[in-house]
Amino acid sequence: MSKIKPRLARGMRDFLPQTILKRREILDKFVEIFERYGFLPLETPALEHIEILTGKYGEDERLIYRLEKRSEKESAEDLGLRYDLTVPLARVIAMNQDLVFPFKRYQIQPVWRADRPQKGRFREFYQCDIDIIGTDSIIADCEIIAVLNEALESIGFSKFTIQINHRKILKAIADFAGVGEEKYTSMCTAIDKFDKKGITGVEEELHKRLFVVEQTRKIIDIISIQGSFEEKYKILLESFQNSTEGIAGLNDLKTMFENLEYMNVPMERLQFSLVLARGLDYYTGPIFETVVEEPKIGALTGGGRYDDLIGVFSGQKIPATGSSLGLERILTVFDELGIESSALQTVDVIVINSTEELKKNSIEILAQLRKEKIKSEVYYNSKKDLRTQLAYASKKNIPLALILFPDEWKEGKVVIKDLVNRDQIIIPKEVYITAIKKLLNNKF
Amino acid sequence: MSKIKPRLARGMRDFLPQTILKRREILDKFVEIFERYGFLPLETPALEHIEILTGKYGEDERLIYRLEKRSEKESAEDLGLRYDLTVPLARVIAMNQDLVFPFKRYQIQPVWRADRPQKGRFREFYQCDIDIIGTDSIIADCEIIAVLNEALESIGFSKFTIQINHRKILKAIADFAGVGEEKYTSMCTAIDKFDKKGITGVEEELHKRLFVVEQTRKIIDIISIQGSFEEKYKILLESFQNSTEGIAGLNDLKTMFENLEYMNVPMERLQFSLVLARGLDYYTGPIFETVVEEPKIGALTGGGRYDDLIGVFSGQKIPATGSSLGLERILTVFDELGIESSALQTVDVIVINSTEELKKNSIEILAQLRKEKIKSEVYYNSKKDLRTQLAYASKKNIPLALILFPDEWKEGKVVIKDLVNRDQIIIPKEVYITAIKKLLNNKF
Repeated sequence: MSKIKPRLARGMRDFLPQTILKRREILDKFVEIFERYGFLPLETPALEHIEILTGKYGEDERLIYRLEKRSEKESAEDLGLRYDLTVPLARVIAMNQDLVFPFKRYQIQPVWRADRPQKGRFREFYQCDIDIIGTDSIIADCEIIAVLNEALESIGFSKFTIQINHRKILKAIADFAGVGEEKYTSMCTAIDKFDKKGITGVEEELHKRLFVVEQTRKIIDIISIQGSFEEKYKILLESFQNSTEGIAGLNDLKTMFENLEYMNVPMERLQFSLVLARGLDYYTGPIFETVVEEPKIGALTGGGRYDDLIGVFSGQKIPATGSSLGLERILTVFDELGIESSALQTVDVIVINSTEELKKNSIEILAQLRKEKIKSEVYYNSKKDLRTQLAYASKKNIPLALILFPDEWKEGKVVIKDLVNRDQIIIPKEVYITAIKKLLNNKF
Repeated sequence: MSKIKPRLARGMRDFLPQTILKRREILDKFVEIFERYGFLPLETPALEHIEILTGKYGEDERLIYRLEKRSEKESAEDLGLRYDLTVPLARVIAMNQDLVFPFKRYQIQPVWRADRPQKGRFREFYQCDIDIIGTDSIIADCEIIAVLNEALESIGFSKFTIQINHRKILKAIADFAGVGEEKYTSMCTAIDKFDKKGITGVEEELHKRLFVVEQTRKIIDIISIQGSFEEKYKILLESFQNSTEGIAGLNDLKTMFENLEYMNVPMERLQFSLVLARGLDYYTGPIFETVVEEPKIGALTGGGRYDDLIGVFSGQKIPATGSSLGLERILTVFDELGIESSALQTVDVIVINSTEELKKNSIEILAQLRKEKIKSEVYYNSKKDLRTQLAYASKKNIPLALILFPDEWKEGKVVIKDLVNRDQIIIPKEVYITAIKKLLNNKF
């Protein structure tokens, strides 16, 4: 067979064991929290009909991977790869009218985007979404935030803020500044620049987008308001006195701040951020992001209420709120904070047989260890010298070796070697399980 | 927006919560066992270069999903969707020369095949593979079988057999019957029919494949040998006296049967099966399948030694052995055996607030329950009557409701209602955590 160069497709990665074990440590914690809050798992197929996928992502639509159309009649479907987890959720909701609503689901699956690969951005990456479908209660939005808060806390993060704004407040700002419907999205996009370029960046962007000076001034004035939630609330209530939308948005946030306090979310973490706009068009109510102080890598989570999207396939209005947790960024922060992750979990014990004659016994001991739920391995090739076998164990970070030497074995004894501090003990073979359990308990 | 019909692509499925939770129950057990035996997780991307995928699957190659080639220069790659987990493993091995060998990995990921969908066969399905790469020790083959045995036992299966044969024995049978190299694969394919059509089916197939009568007779004679391992071994040793390959195969199996006994695999489950051939070309040593008596749905697992495949990308010979666990079939058997699966794990407690005034208190109680790691939900809409709220709880199989009634609350009490047997207790609000924990402990 001609030799084929082994290589990954652009923007793709393999996850080797150490990486998976670290991700699992984080995801297990998230899943426990999601389920404790009543969210249930959902999985959807990687392949969807192209008409399900298209028409929802704006200009990013060109990033959807499309399949080559197959010629066989029975499979001549136009298919594409899952681009996010929200559109498949909308399809599932439309196809399963017998679900109990509110339907709280979490979904952790890869998505594919033919984006330009760069540091930290891949063409296949995991998304982790939580959503509550079928209720317009603001408590649902609060629960999403409470979950995000507890999820980040559970993996040792403490220095983060939860920034909250409301699409109706942004709409009221537009009205206040005399910005028409047709330039509302453009205004939001400009405000979104604050994150990277500060208030002058927003001003420049508004200018570039041909907002008139008076409008720009009014927008900048409002989004520059400083102070506590109550202070901002008071000033805005006055500015929005003619805007039912603005007042509704403010009162939603007031209810949210109150309820988040009842939910034990630390108040100092919450920020009413007038410069938070969120890129996507489809948000209709509260919007929120979590941001860490260090390292500066943008939002770890992003979400909000989107009451018009889920109904796209069912033709009814279905209220919904939710958030994505950016796993890649969360992992980056996790690494940078140097939070202790348990070492590569390999096995706890390696059984080493120093001669071919003792192979049978070593395998029986191995079976016994595993029966006792002790993670263990045997070195396959008993002809190899002890040094080779111990070097293998050490490369795999195995902490203990149980060694069968002919002389000791004849005396009814086995050797247990601590591969970390190089101690060893010789014990009667009847007690090796107890001895190993004790050693492992002391270690961990 | 024009209404788009919500539908799944052919051969695809959504996994709703109940299904995922059941699969997880099984997979969690498998993963614990894999890791206890020293296997580590690996994940590879869904998309691979087409030249990595092609040339390995014979005529099934037409089932590979190919991506539409993108026009942008930077992403003009020829890509296809992962077809199995073995070829990606071979690529990973070639690209990561610093892995510690023997490398024991498990991999649980979906694969895609544009196969004709039918009952129980999908175009996207999970594969679950365990493999040991980089050792020719027969102990490695035994470990694979020991894992399969324990995995099936762990989910309550007991009536299954582990059928074992050896490619070298099949080769020796071909030699014994005077079948040349060029018809060896054809003979194996014919023998493979035994599973579905019995010994006469094999005979017919050999005839159809133009084996001469004398060859057919000899083949049928040998594969019809009955008896224990020792009995078959003796007879075959005689027939194969001129075949070093045949003798090597027999001795491998002898060593395996011995070691599997040391590993506590029940001997009555092991069958030396001369009619087991395994479809794929790439096996080179022992081959094995596990088969349940009821229902008759073919092998639950299939694998063997394949010393020539893993090296395909690295150009060196890398010995390997492993097995796939057929999750779909295992789940079917699991369902048919009626093995108790824990019910849909939804939350344990629903907090119900009968008036808007008590909403604050209900949310504080909710936060407290979650802090105590009790899975819980609140009914979002406190304006709904009690009956609606309880009906929701019952549809979601929530066993307990904690209800705040204005009168009882004023007296410092809450009501806990058992939604299964309809009992209720009224208790001081200071002790609701203790009371709920007690009730949940009694229930589960």
